[in-house]
Amino acid sequence: MKVVAISGGIGGAKLALGLDRVLPPGALTVIANTGDDFHHLDLHVSPDIDTLLYTLAGLDDPVRGWGRKDETWTFMQALEQLGGETWFRLGDGDLATHVERTRLLGAGASLSAVTAELARRLGLASAIVPMSDQPVRTRVETDEGWLDFQHYFVRRQCQPRVLGLAFEGAAAARPAEAALEALADPALAAVVICPSNPYLSVDPILAVPGLRTAIEASRAPVIAVSPVIGGQAVKGPTVKMMGELGLDPSAATVAAHYRGLADIFVLDETDAGLDIGAGLERAVAPTLMRTLEDKTRLARFVLERAGKTP
Amino acid sequence: MKVVAISGGIGGAKLALGLDRVLPPGALTVIANTGDDFHHLDLHVSPDIDTLLYTLAGLDDPVRGWGRKDETWTFMQALEQLGGETWFRLGDGDLATHVERTRLLGAGASLSAVTAELARRLGLASAIVPMSDQPVRTRVETDEGWLDFQHYFVRRQCQPRVLGLAFEGAAAARPAEAALEALADPALAAVVICPSNPYLSVDPILAVPGLRTAIEASRAPVIAVSPVIGGQAVKGPTVKMMGELGLDPSAATVAAHYRGLADIFVLDETDAGLDIGAGLERAVAPTLMRTLEDKTRLARFVLERAGKTP
Repeated sequence: MKVVAISGGIGGAKLALGLDRVLPPGALTVIANTGDDFHHLDLHVSPDIDTLLYTLAGLDDPVRGWGRKDETWTFMQALEQLGGETWFRLGDGDLATHVERTRLLGAGASLSAVTAELARRLGLASAIVPMSDQPVRTRVETDEGWLDFQHYFVRRQCQPRVLGLAFEGAAAARPAEAALEALADPALAAVVICPSNPYLSVDPILAVPGLRTAIEASRAPVIAVSPVIGGQAVKGPTVKMMGELGLDPSAATVAAHYRGLADIFVLDETDAGLDIGAGLERAVAPTLMRTLEDKTRLARFVLERAGKTP
Repeated sequence: MKVVAISGGIGGAKLALGLDRVLPPGALTVIANTGDDFHHLDLHVSPDIDTLLYTLAGLDDPVRGWGRKDETWTFMQALEQLGGETWFRLGDGDLATHVERTRLLGAGASLSAVTAELARRLGLASAIVPMSDQPVRTRVETDEGWLDFQHYFVRRQCQPRVLGLAFEGAAAARPAEAALEALADPALAAVVICPSNPYLSVDPILAVPGLRTAIEASRAPVIAVSPVIGGQAVKGPTVKMMGELGLDPSAATVAAHYRGLADIFVLDETDAGLDIGAGLERAVAPTLMRTLEDKTRLARFVLERAGKTP
């Protein structure tokens, strides 16, 4: 029995962790968004892959909510002293991932191979696969003009009004081989779309030609979990952005976004009464994941609804 | 009144600091060895330049003797976890220098320009100038074959027996413009060859075509300070290497090495009775520099003997 999860960073990684813990070792493949990747200080930074790596390795910082636990910040202090760019905070331990990834990519390895190697080094049982080995860059059209994703997200703290999104390079990108293999696996029991931002984290993955088709072609049920609970996002700019894009900020809007792709849509209990329209089987569960138990409980629920009891 | 110092890392930087402290701001230019530079983890590391930067900025670690004070090592721990190369220890704060230098070089800046910018950011009054903007790499012929300098020095801890030295790229290198300008300055009052390893730290500088000639062409006195005291090196492999190269490990051998280039040779009081032969004016002083006072006292002595009282 195999499971594929489609995930962005923080929110998605929570459910990915739940799945990782309840599934047998080796059963889970997480296809990660790389639209947030960027070059910073000449380093290749892959924020969503790293969040997944750290979360599944138990190295994530539970208090800060991003990056590594037991982190130090001496590099940033020294960089500030040297007048370097400090708007994107890189922890000292986190930096090792970026330096090692950049070195391996520079030596000719693919992002898939580098990610697999990092996962192996961190002792992960699950596979983490970038959506593509080619660069796809999420760009945000705002009232201040087009911004690179991290400039919008971190540097400008999601303050500009969003007018539209583009996934630069997506048309020319190919899905990572391991992503296609996981989706074509005859043992595939479920495709889980994690509660990540549908527009910023999941859409870049679906924009890689062939990935959406591969999900649709799979006979496994596709089950999506709403990142919107009671009209609020657990974290991040999802709801603010939905409003700016003229969308009703509700789980029903997310459901509509996944119609045609997902078979089952998981709403939070808060939204139990919400009409999500036809064409999607509805499921209701507590979806707020604070503890590891929350995560494994939701993972079990999702797998059960997909018809597979782990 | 201007002064040029010729320096490698730790030992030379001590006297450079003394000169920096006793001379008026802007009077000192240190021409630094870059033969120890290397690419590591895809970063451009310039150990001698950095030792000079940190020492003159008061950021050096007085206990460890290299790198930055108040350093942390989270990067190295995380890199080890990821299976990266950890034989060359990079502190978290030190890493900022390498990342920023690599970024600026990648953007097309010369090593001279990058070094000047780093010095400016650290508030240095003196100029630090690499011997060349072109790569010159010290290679060590040993009983284990030819080794890159850092592999000999750090990875193999100077254990292999040295048979010879080569400065790869030196023939094609040009002196850094600022080095030539400093040596041609009509206000130049002294050229100080700091107590660095003559073979590993000073020779690479002299191997850059035009630099030795520019020193000789200067009308300022050239005064060299012995790094060997009573047949011992204060630090590093100088004496071990001299023995392996068939040289008598004494300050007299160093004096002979600088004959024709230096006008004055400073011996430690321990070596007051040593015969250094003809053609070099001898000077005797306490040359062991433990405290800042030791460093400024030796700097004043050197400048006085060069005929210039600061």
